[in-house]
Amino acid sequence: MAYNLLQGKKGIIFGALDEKSIAWRTALKCYEEGAQLVLTNAPVALRMGEINKLSEATNAPVIGADVTNMDDLKKLFEDATAHFGGKIDFILHSIGMSLNVRKGKSYTELDYGFNQKTLDISAMSLHRVLRTAWDMDALNEWGSVVALTYIAAQRVFPHYSEMADAKALLESVARSFGYHYAIKKKVRINTVSQSPTRTTAGSGVKGFDGFMNYAEKMSPMGNASSDDCANYCVSLFSDLTRMVTMQNLFHDGGFSFMGVTQEVLNEMEK
Amino acid sequence: MAYNLLQGKKGIIFGALDEKSIAWRTALKCYEEGAQLVLTNAPVALRMGEINKLSEATNAPVIGADVTNMDDLKKLFEDATAHFGGKIDFILHSIGMSLNVRKGKSYTELDYGFNQKTLDISAMSLHRVLRTAWDMDALNEWGSVVALTYIAAQRVFPHYSEMADAKALLESVARSFGYHYAIKKKVRINTVSQSPTRTTAGSGVKGFDGFMNYAEKMSPMGNASSDDCANYCVSLFSDLTRMVTMQNLFHDGGFSFMGVTQEVLNEMEK
Amino acid sequence: MAYNLLQGKKGIIFGALDEKSIAWRTALKCYEEGAQLVLTNAPVALRMGEINKLSEATNAPVIGADVTNMDDLKKLFEDATAHFGGKIDFILHSIGMSLNVRKGKSYTELDYGFNQKTLDISAMSLHRVLRTAWDMDALNEWGSVVALTYIAAQRVFPHYSEMADAKALLESVARSFGYHYAIKKKVRINTVSQSPTRTTAGSGVKGFDGFMNYAEKMSPMGNASSDDCANYCVSLFSDLTRMVTMQNLFHDGGFSFMGVTQEVLNEMEK
Amino acid sequence: MAYNLLQGKKGIIFGALDEKSIAWRTALKCYEEGAQLVLTNAPVALRMGEINKLSEATNAPVIGADVTNMDDLKKLFEDATAHFGGKIDFILHSIGMSLNVRKGKSYTELDYGFNQKTLDISAMSLHRVLRTAWDMDALNEWGSVVALTYIAAQRVFPHYSEMADAKALLESVARSFGYHYAIKKKVRINTVSQSPTRTTAGSGVKGFDGFMNYAEKMSPMGNASSDDCANYCVSLFSDLTRMVTMQNLFHDGGFSFMGVTQEVLNEMEK
Repeated sequence: MAYNLLQGKKGIIFGALDEKSIAWRTALKCYEEGAQLVLTNAPVALRMGEINKLSEATNAPVIGADVTNMDDLKKLFEDATAHFGGKIDFILHSIGMSLNVRKGKSYTELDYGFNQKTLDISAMSLHRVLRTAWDMDALNEWGSVVALTYIAAQRVFPHYSEMADAKALLESVARSFGYHYAIKKKVRINTVSQSPTRTTAGSGVKGFDGFMNYAEKMSPMGNASSDDCANYCVSLFSDLTRMVTMQNLFHDGGFSFMGVTQEVLNEMEK
Repeated sequence: MAYNLLQGKKGIIFGALDEKSIAWRTALKCYEEGAQLVLTNAPVALRMGEINKLSEATNAPVIGADVTNMDDLKKLFEDATAHFGGKIDFILHSIGMSLNVRKGKSYTELDYGFNQKTLDISAMSLHRVLRTAWDMDALNEWGSVVALTYIAAQRVFPHYSEMADAKALLESVARSFGYHYAIKKKVRINTVSQSPTRTTAGSGVKGFDGFMNYAEKMSPMGNASSDDCANYCVSLFSDLTRMVTMQNLFHDGGFSFMGVTQEVLNEMEK
Repeated sequence: MAYNLLQGKKGIIFGALDEKSIAWRTALKCYEEGAQLVLTNAPVALRMGEINKLSEATNAPVIGADVTNMDDLKKLFEDATAHFGGKIDFILHSIGMSLNVRKGKSYTELDYGFNQKTLDISAMSLHRVLRTAWDMDALNEWGSVVALTYIAAQRVFPHYSEMADAKALLESVARSFGYHYAIKKKVRINTVSQSPTRTTAGSGVKGFDGFMNYAEKMSPMGNASSDDCANYCVSLFSDLTRMVTMQNLFHDGGFSFMGVTQEVLNEMEK
Repeated sequence: MAYNLLQGKKGIIFGALDEKSIAWRTALKCYEEGAQLVLTNAPVALRMGEINKLSEATNAPVIGADVTNMDDLKKLFEDATAHFGGKIDFILHSIGMSLNVRKGKSYTELDYGFNQKTLDISAMSLHRVLRTAWDMDALNEWGSVVALTYIAAQRVFPHYSEMADAKALLESVARSFGYHYAIKKKVRINTVSQSPTRTTAGSGVKGFDGFMNYAEKMSPMGNASSDDCANYCVSLFSDLTRMVTMQNLFHDGGFSFMGVTQEVLNEMEK
């Protein structure tokens, strides 16, 4: 069911890798709701080729950009505004990568060079994107930016390792830049703290299945799916949520405010 | 602009006093979005007669109910489900009253009898409403309940006095009942922590203008209006936000995550 | 090992029932650290007679007081200041009682009369105590008040039921009164959010053993004991923590900032 | 007044620049309380020479270390444990530096190279210190680590700029490493979120006086001084607080839980 909630709006979606990606599902939903889109991802991710399916399905050009490269980002925004023939109304930032996690280095044995890349790609990239838009004045008034995050920014999930720190940094960037952009152009910037989601990226984390199961049982509504998340992002890009900014919004079936569920206690007592 | 976001949904709106009320604005918005409504308020509030205008505008019956009286609440839900010919999809709880504040008693000189009434009317009433619905199984699966609250539940605003404690209690009830209702029927329960709003109720608080001005200057987007709040409530009653539950959602133009704005510093340095 | 941290200080300890009580352990510790004490509890609790052992061990008089009765509280403070020959430096509020929990009524079937008593005894009692001290000007400058609470005020633990709401209310009262008392007399008021503790009161909660075990495995340091809590309270009554006020301080071996431990995941995967 | 709270304990103090430094005041207090100390700072800071006064006053060697250099840190811990003839009981991390702030670059025009240094020096340095201790097994069981932070990690203070993000990262590192060290050696790791303090470093921030004044008026007890902070750190290094870990502890005269004080409202209404 579609409502035309995003009719006339133009958005950039970062991070759609394949059909399991939250960014992918969000792109589809935004399109259904009447938005025009530009899709972007790192050149290495684009080479997989999957994104072309999404490009067709949403009638959206794909523009590659390395989010740690200011020239790439500038070109992305130039091309996007040229394509749209106007400014941008919303942005989804769904970007995260930890070389330490990939290489199996635990939190107490981080490679600091990898760590620096993790922080740059996963967190400071939001600053780079916003700053590019800011310098070019590329966003419309009342624009909306959402970055995806995880509750590991507030509480420790051992396997999440340095990504927890990256997400804490990301959320701080959202708040800090949110202040400036609210004052300048009424642009809102929020993070959505989503249930663990079985994406291609997420599945790479060691012990992922155990913690999906735990999260499912600890959430009174169960884990939120990527389609649920897409719906929620639509609401945040729409004009119904104009005064919500600088927030970290949990979208997790209630996980964040549970101490313990009966189901987890039962499981532990088996 | 309307999207039919609430097409086919049935809701009860508590607390529309006059056209400045958030509940009033929310009722109008919900109606525009296709919902069918029942309006309710305390008998003493109904006697003002204003609500009949809203009743006409939204084609909704008015059913009086004292929220501290379980028989009244039972009758309300019976009449509402009879009127709708079916169960209820959403509820707005916009109820608060402090006799101590009205009588000018400061926080250090509370009348404990008044305080007990304040807690019952402003906070435990949410439990009573939910429990009535629970016992009658009066809510549809994926129903949505929103109660309005204020950031005084987290931080001290001297003039807000015992209402701060009442709001803290209200938010806890939302979480506690939210767990049970999520498990039983996928019903979500959230509180919306709204900017100070110039309603007839709000204006009664001593020093209200000073703190409206402060909040305005401390919010990067300015204070959220009651119409903004109505829009946000619509998004929370819609199917786009099904997995958001047990949250306290700040709807305040960024106030809640500000340490201080330049504008407040400037004002203080004058 | 004792440091004379509370040399010359005078304190009132509410809620020592028997030797498992946190209040009992705290009284012993405060005495070791050089404080003079007055012990108090509800008349019905005093009838058990256990407290006389503590009275001897700490050389402290026992003065009965029903914390919902302002006359009792006034008499308590009068007798205590008379006994001390001076004003009071610290107060421990370790009081909680839920008739609904005792009677086995679940959260969705609360008796509202019982609930009103639960809120009055467990939460508003802190206001009554502080207000009595305030009206009599019975606290010294830089005094320190600690009330014990539980993380159920922030997150749902199903069996904790209405006590969660009572603790949320208690914490709000601590903040609200904390503002006024800081300004008037530099008195600080904090809550300590303690691990679940095997006290006579705590053990009464249904499913308590299961959640003790869960909390133990979810806390990187394990659950904090009542002796640990006593030590922490001593630090908060001492002059080392004068500028800490209006805080809710987790004393829980890290529980509050864990998403999940490996130990809990292991247990669930068995 | 001293209590011998740290008798027999050995600690490393990072970041004492001159007598206004919180680290300086904390070193003095720890020494008074019976601790043995090693002082350390960046080579460039040591060149000022002031630290030699502190070294004399506390009978503590000064060992230079660049906290972004793992070899320096290794040597520091080797020399410190050799000096002490044993392992270390506590560490104070009082380190922060923002090149962007120094160079007058606002948050929307960060130099990303500078930013990378800011994050490394101000936040990841805590990881480097802990990891060095971890690899060398240089901390005693029940050790205590405190890192100083600021509430800008949670809420926006415009002039604090990228240091806000650095502090958010720092606090996340404390939590993340806190989990591992609690399990391995019962070592606790906390951050203390201190009032703005007129140190040589703090004063460098543009608009600092305005926000000191604001913070003073927004704190019911006024701003906490560096001596107050030193006292609080002593309590956290002592055995009285063994079960407090992974917390961010506000030491700010109540600032963090104020919405607004009457004093700020008065000032704004002038």
